[in-house]
Amino acid sequence: MQLHTIATSIAIAGLGAAAQPVFAQAAAGTSTVTIYGIMDAGIEYRSRNNADGDGVWRVNSGGLNTSRLGFKGSEDLGDGMKAVFNLESEVNLDSGTSGSALWGRLAYVGLEKKGLGTVMLGRNSTTVYDFVLPHDFMGYAPQYSYLTTSASVPSSGYTSRVSNAVKYVGSFGGFKLGAHYGFGEVSTSAGANSAYGLGAAYSAGAVSAQVSFDEGRSGATEALPASTRNRSAIASGSYDFGAAKLYAGLRATKRSPAVPSATDVEFRSDLWWLGASAPVSQAVTLFGGVYYENKHDTGSDPTMFAGKATYNLSKRTWLYAVAATARSKGDNGTHTPTGVFRDQVPVGAQQSGFGIGVQHRF
Amino acid sequence: MQLHTIATSIAIAGLGAAAQPVFAQAAAGTSTVTIYGIMDAGIEYRSRNNADGDGVWRVNSGGLNTSRLGFKGSEDLGDGMKAVFNLESEVNLDSGTSGSALWGRLAYVGLEKKGLGTVMLGRNSTTVYDFVLPHDFMGYAPQYSYLTTSASVPSSGYTSRVSNAVKYVGSFGGFKLGAHYGFGEVSTSAGANSAYGLGAAYSAGAVSAQVSFDEGRSGATEALPASTRNRSAIASGSYDFGAAKLYAGLRATKRSPAVPSATDVEFRSDLWWLGASAPVSQAVTLFGGVYYENKHDTGSDPTMFAGKATYNLSKRTWLYAVAATARSKGDNGTHTPTGVFRDQVPVGAQQSGFGIGVQHRF
Amino acid sequence: MQLHTIATSIAIAGLGAAAQPVFAQAAAGTSTVTIYGIMDAGIEYRSRNNADGDGVWRVNSGGLNTSRLGFKGSEDLGDGMKAVFNLESEVNLDSGTSGSALWGRLAYVGLEKKGLGTVMLGRNSTTVYDFVLPHDFMGYAPQYSYLTTSASVPSSGYTSRVSNAVKYVGSFGGFKLGAHYGFGEVSTSAGANSAYGLGAAYSAGAVSAQVSFDEGRSGATEALPASTRNRSAIASGSYDFGAAKLYAGLRATKRSPAVPSATDVEFRSDLWWLGASAPVSQAVTLFGGVYYENKHDTGSDPTMFAGKATYNLSKRTWLYAVAATARSKGDNGTHTPTGVFRDQVPVGAQQSGFGIGVQHRF
Repeated sequence: MQLHTIATSIAIAGLGAAAQPVFAQAAAGTSTVTIYGIMDAGIEYRSRNNADGDGVWRVNSGGLNTSRLGFKGSEDLGDGMKAVFNLESEVNLDSGTSGSALWGRLAYVGLEKKGLGTVMLGRNSTTVYDFVLPHDFMGYAPQYSYLTTSASVPSSGYTSRVSNAVKYVGSFGGFKLGAHYGFGEVSTSAGANSAYGLGAAYSAGAVSAQVSFDEGRSGATEALPASTRNRSAIASGSYDFGAAKLYAGLRATKRSPAVPSATDVEFRSDLWWLGASAPVSQAVTLFGGVYYENKHDTGSDPTMFAGKATYNLSKRTWLYAVAATARSKGDNGTHTPTGVFRDQVPVGAQQSGFGIGVQHRF
Repeated sequence: MQLHTIATSIAIAGLGAAAQPVFAQAAAGTSTVTIYGIMDAGIEYRSRNNADGDGVWRVNSGGLNTSRLGFKGSEDLGDGMKAVFNLESEVNLDSGTSGSALWGRLAYVGLEKKGLGTVMLGRNSTTVYDFVLPHDFMGYAPQYSYLTTSASVPSSGYTSRVSNAVKYVGSFGGFKLGAHYGFGEVSTSAGANSAYGLGAAYSAGAVSAQVSFDEGRSGATEALPASTRNRSAIASGSYDFGAAKLYAGLRATKRSPAVPSATDVEFRSDLWWLGASAPVSQAVTLFGGVYYENKHDTGSDPTMFAGKATYNLSKRTWLYAVAATARSKGDNGTHTPTGVFRDQVPVGAQQSGFGIGVQHRF
Repeated sequence: MQLHTIATSIAIAGLGAAAQPVFAQAAAGTSTVTIYGIMDAGIEYRSRNNADGDGVWRVNSGGLNTSRLGFKGSEDLGDGMKAVFNLESEVNLDSGTSGSALWGRLAYVGLEKKGLGTVMLGRNSTTVYDFVLPHDFMGYAPQYSYLTTSASVPSSGYTSRVSNAVKYVGSFGGFKLGAHYGFGEVSTSAGANSAYGLGAAYSAGAVSAQVSFDEGRSGATEALPASTRNRSAIASGSYDFGAAKLYAGLRATKRSPAVPSATDVEFRSDLWWLGASAPVSQAVTLFGGVYYENKHDTGSDPTMFAGKATYNLSKRTWLYAVAATARSKGDNGTHTPTGVFRDQVPVGAQQSGFGIGVQHRF
């Protein structure tokens, strides 16, 4: 690796009386600060994007993975202990904006103990988000996956991020355990607006499997302390046959509004998915599969077929093509809108989309 | 160069199953991540800054160039191919705020091929912005240039940034070609709110010249898909006599409102500029010239004389002084307001301003 | 110190015609860009947090010190001269948000001359903020200090940050002098909304002492150019006995509303504080003391006892516990609300809080 001479140093600065010189840090142990990111943008076409059935061409940020910029670091405290932190910001390459909270993806500090795991404090990804991610053949792609949130009405899915959280994750041989609790911070009632999650995973050789649970609560106030609850339980796994890798899972979701209304009813759904990936050359890998959601109440039951192909230009840069088509059962018009794009409210009973793009990781 | 020992590394992190170790990157080729910026602040006085004719003293960020912080990087993919990205944020040193879109200056990822050029996806500077910049003797300075936008009523100028864009730039010997297309992303009509630009430049020895064109469209909705169009064509150049460098150009602008109204009429203007720069010592360089705008409809025809002096403390830090005075023809009161400060709506028929400041680049 | 191989370089980039290569910088002198930060989060309980007297459990960012991310740099210009800059952003680890102004803590560029001091332009901490900080036994902690702002009604304190500012600080042997002036930038009147501060400090051996003054003005408009004024004078110091260090001070504050009203009356208060810190082992240091505020008008006169213990895991990472209890004189109900948390309007006549957390500096 070529060494670039550097005019950068890590220092304690601007901290008034508590400032510490650079070299005092060195004595405290090895430490790193890492700047990292994913820069992902492409051109997308989606059919039936408005009520008149018109399609749209767009530049989209994050066709494969949400574009992001992050800072993370760790300090070796000795005895297998580390201090860790991570700040991660969503970047919208199409418009140059960031996510509504600057460090809305990750903002935590924590301690890691070898053999015991890591405890983190702050805003974090949920346990279920971390545990299910390896089993989605589309990798939570905005183009196109139904796993975190489905683009169907009413939408379903699980909480991806949690604020005010204590989170734990630990690995023990092939086993991995995770849990988090997010404080609701409503003075009246300790449980109002709180959130929690649990996960257990196992991997060995070709096998990877997990079960996890997530509950997010919202909407409570001091005057009306009952929370709306969104609960999801997910079982998922993958098996690597060598020539191809299979992915499958089931997400059962239930929404229980604190104050049910005509537009916010109690709601249940089961999302099944099945997919596969296969390297077809040294540079090209194909992914494809299907998401099917059983919506217990509306019966619109959307199905989305989705696939992608990646062409590696290096271990950090690749070109990609993605495509998906989704439709709800019965194709019965505007009362069961279903789309392919996770982050957009759909308007018609079916939609297709495709895109090409480039992703660079650093 | 003194080497600073470093506790920083570039790593893939926080990417779940796709995480890759640091050393895998090294094998993929040489890569860099660069933190850069311009920190520019000064004290400015402007006369006739309100309706009563009062002046104002201010601390201003970006007297010479907009203050900014950026991250950019590239990866060598082999065969003369590179992956590139750039995130650039406006910084307002006076108030500590950033531009309204965090990465509103630049947010793109792209591929560069030696001998062919670079294709970028995301938010970017417009082609005309890049091509004309070297020919403005005031370097698009907020204090004080009329080139990107004039501080006169109605204001005129060209789009500096474009969202949802595909952009190309390539150099072939002394020739440089550029183009961009910004998707409008309105479902009804493919062209609504789209933007595009074209540029061609030539430089050899003392000569530099370019022609470019820019069209920005805005205001279209699905219900009313007609766009308001702003078109500019610019021819400009510079010639370096050694003892001094001359700059000249003409920008022809036309605004065509989709729905003309009393406050948004069709509007045409021609902006001429002529300037020069000359090093007067090893540390000091002087710049000065005039902008004259022929406003075809209102006839207010503002003229601004502007100049600056820079005193280099190093190759990256300099002190500067700037001054300008602008007035509209006839000095006929409030119906032809004209000012010196590009980013502010003027209130009187004439205004002068001056400032001193410091700029540091890293 | 272990050397980490780096794929980072500092370069001038994206600056059009003025771009300069990396190695040109090296020739211009030694320069650094530093990424630094404080990541501080913990769990807090506060009693009587609403009108019904309910307490609340929270994850809080910045129990000991405001969490932050910063970029700073300097360039050696020769002859004892340096160019300096600093961008510092508040980070709320609990919610992932940043402060309302991205670089609201620090955003300046300046010049430093050895033996003469530093002049900075931009947004900055006030002189009084810098000079008093070493004498607060709680170090301006959000959990829990009354020094910058008291959590009592009406609140009192001094301006921590100033926009549009010219600031000077210089050290001469044991003496330190500081001053700043923040332009009000109201066209009508040069003094409207301006701010200024002055400070003088002395330290030698075990002794540290300072006197400083701060005036912030606000609320003026062109139509009504009179400013509301907040003035504070502070005398404070510390003495290090070795086994323990004592801290004491007096802050006299006066608020003079431009337009007094029922909810914004002229207001005076004197805040006294006395505290101590003592290392009790190599890893553990205890801090504790009392803040007492004499509110001349309301007579509610809150008293807050506050303390903290830090347990060092390294020179950059520590665990901490903090606790405080505050009450206003007479405990006379809702007309004299008093709390412990600087950043929150209190609702009752007394409040207690405690928390545990972890802080990592990089």
